[in-house]
This record gives sequence, C-alpha cells and structure tokens, in this order.
Amino acid sequence: MVDAALQAGTAERRSVFELFARRLTGARRYGVVAGTGRLLEAIERFRFGDAELEFLRDRGVVRERTLDWLADFRFSGNVWGYPEGEVFFPGSPLVTVESSFAEGVLLETLALSILNADSAVATAASRMVHAAHGKPLAEMGSRRTGEFSAVAAARAAYIAGFSATSNLEAGRRYGIPTMGTAAHSFTLLHDTERAAFAAQIAALGTDTTLLVDTYDIEQGVRTAIDVAGTELGAVRIDSGDLPVVVARVRRLLDELGATRTRITVTNDLDEHTVAALAASPVDSFGVGTSVVVGSGTPTMGMVYKLVAHTDDAGGWVSVAKKSADKVSVGGRKSVRRGLSDRGVATAELILLGDGPGGAEEGAELAGSSREVLVPLVVSGEVRREHTGIDGIAAARERHRRCVQELPPVAMSLTRGDPAIPTEYR
Amino acid sequence: MVDAALQAGTAERRSVFELFARRLTGARRYGVVAGTGRLLEAIERFRFGDAELEFLRDRGVVRERTLDWLADFRFSGNVWGYPEGEVFFPGSPLVTVESSFAEGVLLETLALSILNADSAVATAASRMVHAAHGKPLAEMGSRRTGEFSAVAAARAAYIAGFSATSNLEAGRRYGIPTMGTAAHSFTLLHDTERAAFAAQIAALGTDTTLLVDTYDIEQGVRTAIDVAGTELGAVRIDSGDLPVVVARVRRLLDELGATRTRITVTNDLDEHTVAALAASPVDSFGVGTSVVVGSGTPTMGMVYKLVAHTDDAGGWVSVAKKSADKVSVGGRKSVRRGLSDRGVATAELILLGDGPGGAEEGAELAGSSREVLVPLVVSGEVRREHTGIDGIAAARERHRRCVQELPPVAMSLTRGDPAIPTEYR
Repeated sequence: MVDAALQAGTAERRSVFELFARRLTGARRYGVVAGTGRLLEAIERFRFGDAELEFLRDRGVVRERTLDWLADFRFSGNVWGYPEGEVFFPGSPLVTVESSFAEGVLLETLALSILNADSAVATAASRMVHAAHGKPLAEMGSRRTGEFSAVAAARAAYIAGFSATSNLEAGRRYGIPTMGTAAHSFTLLHDTERAAFAAQIAALGTDTTLLVDTYDIEQGVRTAIDVAGTELGAVRIDSGDLPVVVARVRRLLDELGATRTRITVTNDLDEHTVAALAASPVDSFGVGTSVVVGSGTPTMGMVYKLVAHTDDAGGWVSVAKKSADKVSVGGRKSVRRGLSDRGVATAELILLGDGPGGAEEGAELAGSSREVLVPLVVSGEVRREHTGIDGIAAARERHRRCVQELPPVAMSLTRGDPAIPTEYR
Repeated sequence: MVDAALQAGTAERRSVFELFARRLTGARRYGVVAGTGRLLEAIERFRFGDAELEFLRDRGVVRERTLDWLADFRFSGNVWGYPEGEVFFPGSPLVTVESSFAEGVLLETLALSILNADSAVATAASRMVHAAHGKPLAEMGSRRTGEFSAVAAARAAYIAGFSATSNLEAGRRYGIPTMGTAAHSFTLLHDTERAAFAAQIAALGTDTTLLVDTYDIEQGVRTAIDVAGTELGAVRIDSGDLPVVVARVRRLLDELGATRTRITVTNDLDEHTVAALAASPVDSFGVGTSVVVGSGTPTMGMVYKLVAHTDDAGGWVSVAKKSADKVSVGGRKSVRRGLSDRGVATAELILLGDGPGGAEEGAELAGSSREVLVPLVVSGEVRREHTGIDGIAAARERHRRCVQELPPVAMSLTRGDPAIPTEYR
C-alpha cells in the first residue's frame, strides 16, 4: 500500500486512522484498554534496519523509492487515544492516528497486535479481580502463551489489578512485583515430601508457600506444619474440588494451630471458579491459563480504519467502508464519558466532526461528562507519562477508578450487552 | 526451586522431565507438534546476562551461590522428542529432557510457552488445510495476536500446510513465502475506487488482487475489470454471505470475460467456514484471527513433569504426582506409532521403562510400528537438522506425511475422541 500510494502521489495525504472494536468480544460488559504504553515504546523504536530493507529488496516486495522512504521512516504524526487502563465500549476510538497515509498505515499491524492481545488479557483480568472480592491474584500463566506475549500478559494483568506475577522478566522490565512457587517436580525430586519441604524452608524461611497436594493433601498439610511450624506462611492447593478441599485444609490448619497460615489456590482458575470460591477461606489466587489467553477471548477483534483524509485541495474528507455487514462511522471524533449526577457512567458519547481534543463540553450534553481522549504522541514525540514503569502504575490506578465509575451491571460475569450504550452525536 | 535444590544438594540429581498434553484441548482428533525448532534455538541462546542477574540480586530472588550458577548456565543435557510437524495424542511425550534437576527445571516455562502456543496454531491450521481441499491458504492474522507471537504463528501455520503469510518478518526470518493485500483504507484514501485500483495496478501490475467490497461488490468487480482488463490476477471479498457472494462474483467475472481472474476470500474464516465453501468457486483463502488464536483453542494445555530422577546411590527412581485429579505416568518412556498392515495409524504406543531411544521394535508389538522420538539435543549440542529454515521445510513435509497416515476419522471437524488411542505398555 505504501509503495502504490507513493507512486500514485497519495501517500502524503493527511489521514486519520481509528483503532476500535465493533463489539465486545465474548459479550463482555466492558473492555479494558491495555498495551498503549507498549505501543508508544514500539512506535519510538519502529525503524527499518539494513536486514529488513535487504529482505524487501531481495524479494522485490517494494521498489527502490519506497525502500528509501522506509529507510528514513520515523513516525512524525500525532496520536490521541484512551489512556491505558481506561474502560471501553463498542466503537470507542481507542487510538486515533493523524499523519500521512503512509505513516499511519505502517502502524496498523503493530497497533492492532499489541492492543488486541494486551486488552484481551486486561479485560479478562479485570473480571477476575472483581470476582476475587479484594483478595490478591497472582498471574502465573507464562507457560500457556508465547514467550514474549507472556511478559506482556503479566503487565496487562497487573494494570487490571492483579497483585503480582511469576514472570521474572516482567518484574525486571516493568517493575511488577514477582512471586514464585514450588512445582510438584520439586517435591518429587526429593526422597520424601518432608525432605522437599525442609529444603524449601531452609532456602526461603518459614514465610514461604508449600505445595501440599503432591501425594495426599491432609498428610501434606500435617507434614508442612510439622516441618515449618505454625508460622508457615501459606500452603498451595493445585487439584481437587477446591471449595471442599479448601474448607478441609482450613479446618486442619486451625486444628494444628496454624491459624495464620494462608491458603492459596491454583488449578485452572478463571473468573467463574474464582467467584465460586467467594465463600471459601481462600487467601489468594494464582491464575494461569485463563488470564493469559483472555478467558475465552484471546483477542479483542479490534480493527484499524481510515476515517478521514485530505484531498488534493487540502480539505478533509470523511470516509467509511459502506458495503454489506461491516459499516464504519467515518470522520474525526472526540469522546466523552457521560456521567450521572452521582458520577456513574451512563453512556459513551462519541462526538463527530470535531476530532480528538476539539470538543468542549457543551450545553447539549445533559448531565455531566468527562473527556476521555488524551494526547499520546505529539508531532512524533511520545508523551512520557504514558510509558515505562510510571505509566504502568498510573494505568493501574486509572483502571481502579474507571471501574468504580461503572454501573453495577458492569460487574456481571454473564454474557450480555455492554454496561453503557455507545451514542454517536 | 533451583536455589533451594542447590542448597539441599539435590540440584544435580539426574532428572527426566516430560512435556505432554493430558488431553487434546478442544476435543480435537489429533494435535500437531510445532515450535520445536524455535525451542532448540532458544535453548542455545538461553543465558543469564548481567541485567537479569542484577535484577535477581537486587530483588533478593536467589542467593549469591545461585547467581553464580545461573551466570554459568548453559544447557548441557539431552533432549529427545517428537520431531516438529509430527502429530500427537494425549500422553505423547513431546519433549523429554534428561539433565540435572536444576538445568531441566529452568527449561520448563520456556519449553511450555513455545510448544503450547505454536502447537495450538499448527493444530488449528492443519484442520483448515484439510477443510480447504487443496486450495491454498494464507495466514493473515498478525494483528490478532501479540507482535512476537504473530511471527511464530506464521511459522506454525506454514508447517501445518498454509502456503504463505502476510507477515514479512516471518518471511525474512523463516523463509516463508509472503503475500500482501490492499486494505479498505487504500481504496478509501483515493478519490474514487477506480483511482485506487489504477494506483495499485500501476504499482503491482495486473497480476495483483483487488479488494472489491469497499462500496458495492458488483460495481467493484466491474470497475476492477474495466481498469485492469480481463487478465486481472484476483479479486478479494472480505464481507457478506460468502457462498452467495462468491457465486455471484464468479458469474460476473465470467460474463465480463475475466475467466482466469481468481477469487480469494477473507472475513473471519475458520475451518468450519472454509469447509462450508468447499462447493464454491473460491480459489484461495486468507485466514486471520482464527488460525493465530488456535480457533477456540489458544493454548494446548501441555504440562512439564518430572517423571524420574536418580537417588543418592545413582539409581533411577520413577516418580509421579498421585493426588486427586491429575495423575501422571512416571518413568522414562519411548514411543512407537502403531500401524496397520496398510500403514494406517492404529495406536500411540508409549513404552515404559526403556527411556527414549532405548526401545527396539519387539515381537510383542502386533502389526508394524515406527519409532517416533528423535534426538533433539545431545550433551547440550542442538541437532541442526531440526532448526532454521531447513528444519521448517522438513517439518512441513513431515506433517504432510504424518497426517496422511491417520485414519479417516482424524479429519472430522466435530468434537470427539482422539483419532487413535494412547496405550501404555
């Protein structure tokens, strides 16, 4: 496309691309924006190096003029968007890219890859956090997604409210609190379960978590307390019918005097099984597969569409695909979150015509509302407050606030309509 | 675990870890091994650098002695496994790692991440290839999975029989044939659909694929042939009720004299919609989301378990978790694919006790059978025939052969039992 547009003289037309989801995949009640900080860092690094240019030349993918253009490529446009951690709804313009057509179209796959994957994780994670009723959740799913996606998933889950990750690289790169666990292999390596527990306590002290279900859970708990004493930090249970097993283990721990020893559970948990443990004496959850693959929704189905461009006279033209089943709404947009007098979200108000940041709160908006879009990149310069470790902390806090603002129906785990309607004005 | 085992003196016990799937997620009839070559390349590169060691030290994750051990880490053990492209069944030991406990346990997350993700893609892709009845499929799903997983997904889909990918990095890195497509944005950028088509043909010649459904499909086809002539390579359709639309477009192309212009379809295809187009005049398919997220099965649920280790006397001890719902089969294993006299697969024969490569075809095996496991790493040296571009070509050819060997029920797209039973002997 870049090659043909350069040739046709249309590559430099100013263009507005919009990244949005036509619907909330999985019939979720709200989506959670994640990946924005990673996208901004990727845009900063996005260059075509010698190896890439050589490949494109050897394969004849594009002509020389385009290779020259790619060699000099550096994104110089503007990006507006939902700040990371915000919630979103069908049609919400999560990222709006204003640049030449050629620059904007190059970002398409990168932006979609990152936001589709990270937002799917965060959207699932946010539901799990709510289902846990304030008890901490640790992300432990690295093994169930690609080795790079695993690091991104830890980051997205943390933004959505998880407390920690078992992915040490995510700890190193993003400053996320890390935790570890002993696997069954550690117990099996040793000649007895007792020897394994003793080895773990010798290395980590009594404030550690012993995995008690390798052989027999009751015996495992007894051995754990026998070896560690009643100050043992926690026991982990990774199998069985958890509500029943957890209740038994709690009683047994209490009988043994280990009243402060916590219980952490794992075992293919998702938001539904976490919710089902609401009345159980579980102290923390470890969630693996379901959070990193978006709990049934591994991708958000976001798309990236051209909504406006300038013509040869320099005027803006709104455009949208019109055929069949995939109608888009053209034109530049701004967004306000409609709020009731009590501060509860009532609607996603997408205001046509003004473009990002162009709309002021007007008399035509009943009740109150707040601006949603923020500048992410200005003339090619990434806004630093949205990147790095500080950006992640801000996104996590923002998500907490945005979820509190939603009406109660948003917290339903059943499939259904979005918690608030999207209204175009 | 490494830290505690070093301290306890058990870290150097020789150990056998097995990577396998307890069941075929999604009730598939067979699984497809993918990612093995990537895993081997990752094992070769697996080192702890200064930045990683500093993080582990600063956070107090492990003690100094363990940091020293990690700084020197280089995998020195043996790995046996299913060669990439092979099919597999519940319990199939896809990767068997023989090394010290510490070395083997370090590979756990890496091996699972890569194989779970890549095999999920290949398993879905293989079904799509069968459903397409010999028509070519292109992988176009980069935007619907993480930006690094996208490259791996292109590779896995190619091994399973896809013909090409739209991911240029996968072309550069893995030698996979690449293809491109014009998006709706390219049409919308130009003042008219005609101008967009003319621009694309000026850049790419008439043997290109024009996207005809931005406005009205019938008019789009007429304009395409008007601009390109009857030698136009192909038209792409990305919306609508495809069986109906495709038939209409074929008739129209033929009426216009463009009898050799091909039709390619996209639009959220999966194995079921591809199969439903069997009787339609479609020439090729572009598959996006569903292949990169494993068509409902984004991860294979593989686990990595310690099955044997040496004791202090140097003898082998078979081990397995015994509690509750997750029973494993301990001990070293070899594998043969049982075959009928006509060469049709009849059973996955998992032979206990001998260890990988230790079993010879014996008189106790009725009918014929073939050895499945191959050496992948020998004393820390990766076997080069399983890596790089040549490894991918071999895996693709191997997959073609292995699928042909399966009984007809394997090709069923409905949920059901594995195509052949797993038998432990």
